[in-house]
Amino acid sequence: MLNHSAALDRLYSALADGSRRTMVDRLSRGPATVKELAEPLTMSLPAVLQHLRVLEESGLVRSHKAGRVRTCHLQPAVLQEAERWIADRRAGWLAFADPRAEALGKPL
Amino acid sequence: MLNHSAALDRLYSALADGSRRTMVDRLSRGPATVKELAEPLTMSLPAVLQHLRVLEESGLVRSHKAGRVRTCHLQPAVLQEAERWIADRRAGWLAFADPRAEALGKPL
Repeated sequence: MLNHSAALDRLYSALADGSRRTMVDRLSRGPATVKELAEPLTMSLPAVLQHLRVLEESGLVRSHKAGRVRTCHLQPAVLQEAERWIADRRAGWLAFADPRAEALGKPL
Repeated sequence: MLNHSAALDRLYSALADGSRRTMVDRLSRGPATVKELAEPLTMSLPAVLQHLRVLEESGLVRSHKAGRVRTCHLQPAVLQEAERWIADRRAGWLAFADPRAEALGKPL
């Protein structure tokens, strides 16, 4: 539980930055090199690599190097973890707001 | 766009803390007083109020005071915003991973 909580801390922290969300958004359309990730961002390469490190530490992104090119991949299962925690709380709230909808299994 | 990005920064920052997630989890089962929110947390009341302020600034929670009792309410539409950004990126990745599934409108 503690480890899971720490993992969620890292996940939501990783998503709490516009530049990192831009990187995740790009990777949601397929793998990309660090150079490609950096293109829309107005920052130095070391700054991009620092953001990439935060994303990798959260588990949202993995990268591998072939020669001089580092390619990054989104990890959709980890993205799903971040989504699930929120979805479960929203489902809880909907069940509270209308217990009949919950009982009948119907959307509100 | 910038404002929306700043709003998402605040949202995910608010969720990037286990104590605040405990508060959101409690509020997903219905409104609660500050005292009720504080019960499962091993921290001072000022610390709880500080976390509540972060949640209110993100828009996830609203509170109102009646006499000496402050009652807190989850804002499910804001929770949905946090969920939607992630869900949209995951949908993007799924469409990349299997374009046929996207074209047919089928889950993978």
